Amino acid sequence: MKALVFRGGRLAVVDDHPEPQPAADEVVIDVTLAGICRTDIEVTRGYMNFEGVLGHECVGVVGQAGGAAGKKWVGRRVVCEINCVCGKCDMCMAGLKTHCRRRTAIGIEGRDGCFAQRIAVPAANLHAVPNGVADDVAVFAEPLAAALQIIQQVRPSPRDTAVVIGDGRLGQLTAQVLASRGLRPMVVGKSRDKLRRLERLGIGVLDVAEARPRGETHLVVEASGSVEGLRMAIEFVRPRGTIVLKSTLAVGEPLNLSPVVVNEVTILGSRCGPLNEALVTLANGAVSTDGLVSAVYPLSDGVKAMDAAMRPESLKVLIRP
Amino acid sequence: MKALVFRGGRLAVVDDHPEPQPAADEVVIDVTLAGICRTDIEVTRGYMNFEGVLGHECVGVVGQAGGAAGKKWVGRRVVCEINCVCGKCDMCMAGLKTHCRRRTAIGIEGRDGCFAQRIAVPAANLHAVPNGVADDVAVFAEPLAAALQIIQQVRPSPRDTAVVIGDGRLGQLTAQVLASRGLRPMVVGKSRDKLRRLERLGIGVLDVAEARPRGETHLVVEASGSVEGLRMAIEFVRPRGTIVLKSTLAVGEPLNLSPVVVNEVTILGSRCGPLNEALVTLANGAVSTDGLVSAVYPLSDGVKAMDAAMRPESLKVLIRP
Repeated sequence: MKALVFRGGRLAVVDDHPEPQPAADEVVIDVTLAGICRTDIEVTRGYMNFEGVLGHECVGVVGQAGGAAGKKWVGRRVVCEINCVCGKCDMCMAGLKTHCRRRTAIGIEGRDGCFAQRIAVPAANLHAVPNGVADDVAVFAEPLAAALQIIQQVRPSPRDTAVVIGDGRLGQLTAQVLASRGLRPMVVGKSRDKLRRLERLGIGVLDVAEARPRGETHLVVEASGSVEGLRMAIEFVRPRGTIVLKSTLAVGEPLNLSPVVVNEVTILGSRCGPLNEALVTLANGAVSTDGLVSAVYPLSDGVKAMDAAMRPESLKVLIRP
Repeated sequence: MKALVFRGGRLAVVDDHPEPQPAADEVVIDVTLAGICRTDIEVTRGYMNFEGVLGHECVGVVGQAGGAAGKKWVGRRVVCEINCVCGKCDMCMAGLKTHCRRRTAIGIEGRDGCFAQRIAVPAANLHAVPNGVADDVAVFAEPLAAALQIIQQVRPSPRDTAVVIGDGRLGQLTAQVLASRGLRPMVVGKSRDKLRRLERLGIGVLDVAEARPRGETHLVVEASGSVEGLRMAIEFVRPRGTIVLKSTLAVGEPLNLSPVVVNEVTILGSRCGPLNEALVTLANGAVSTDGLVSAVYPLSDGVKAMDAAMRPESLKVLIRP
């Protein structure tokens, strides 16, 4: 089958990638639409030393079940959890399945991803997409879940002040999630177009060049994935406030963490979130995906799609197998 | 009066430092004994751009009141909060007085410290020392309060696993505080003598060269003040676990924060704590200060005392005015 494969440091669309062979507890999804995430780009730069089919955001229709567990899903339109877990380790037993010690993650760790015609995933990972949610909306379920995870971890009050650093894909969704919970987030960004989209949604924006952080914000979400963003987050957050780190980050330049100690700031790492809640949020329109798709490429142009996703002006780039 | 002064990049004992002039809401403490903290050493390296009398840990007797507010304290043996606050800003009004926007901090920011014969402090900052607590024990109230702050912020369960990185002054007190709350902390350190003191108290220890962190610890306290310590803390902490940063830290070398995001770790800055609780803890013996004092110097040898405090083998060095 056709797939976008990263191997030996090289990214290429191949026509002869082996068909997925579902295990007894798995199904095969015929991928309808997939989304490119910053993590996919990081993987092509060596993150997680992953090799194989890229991609972990998708919507599709279950075409085949490997055994009895998946039978009821055949023919249904689904999205899927990216973490494939053992159910038996200390983390799984503690209810922290996304932190399973033996997990694989589709397109990231130990398991082929969804930039392909078909993908095998555990039936336990599936969520049915509500009828009213179109494919090009449902494909945002995974990144929206990641944004919703912030709310689950921090549980901010509507009275809390909030700043989102980064006007990209995740920053856009995060700001909308916070706004949907009654907060009035301010998004700090560099792109006039991206900030304008937020303004149209009634969300406050600030050009990074004009930001004058004064240590007064309860909740700061770092969604730029840059050390500069983290540095600014430390300047924005108020004493005893919270900085949520949404993007993996390697600090290769000097960073003063003294204010974190002096101001007793909480820095909170945040990863995957609740897909079911994301689907509900998309179904009821509490978060809009209008204007978030920059381009849709056929899978045969997967390399071009990745290039497009890397451009600073891009929001979400989709791949259609 | 005699005082240990840091000014123009130079540390010296002077005999003619101006006598403190207490404001109406202040008292003057005749300092009996003072302790050198890592922050004092950092100040001599430029931290906070402070100039003046160093020192913020002391015990003494109130000799004089600037007005009616302090009268009742005259003749009493006291320790004092280091943060002098306005009581009116957003932080003070929110009950977060240690984060007062207009605060001064004795010996650190905007106000002379306690490595002197006398020091003026607000009467509101005083705590009476219980009779059974000797001066060389009471002088640990401030650093012990800083260790107790961890418990206040994190509220760990006795079943939680805990690692303290750093076997110095703060690491020693922190490990004892955790043990007093029913946890069984493991201290990772470099000094055989310091680790031996902890062993004598029944606390588990590990030479840093033998540490094999495996991402399994609920609570990790970074008390070494080094990037190496933070890096190890990230390796020790389990997914969804907590790292408490007790030491101000400037990262000047590469540091990979990706595991913090992937494992959804909480990094929590922690500073000053409850002095009243520290005094109770010292009075009831729940934390022992036996063996923590490496040396006591007269104030006239204050520069030597600072040198001694900087030596790797030192625990607490005291100054007697």
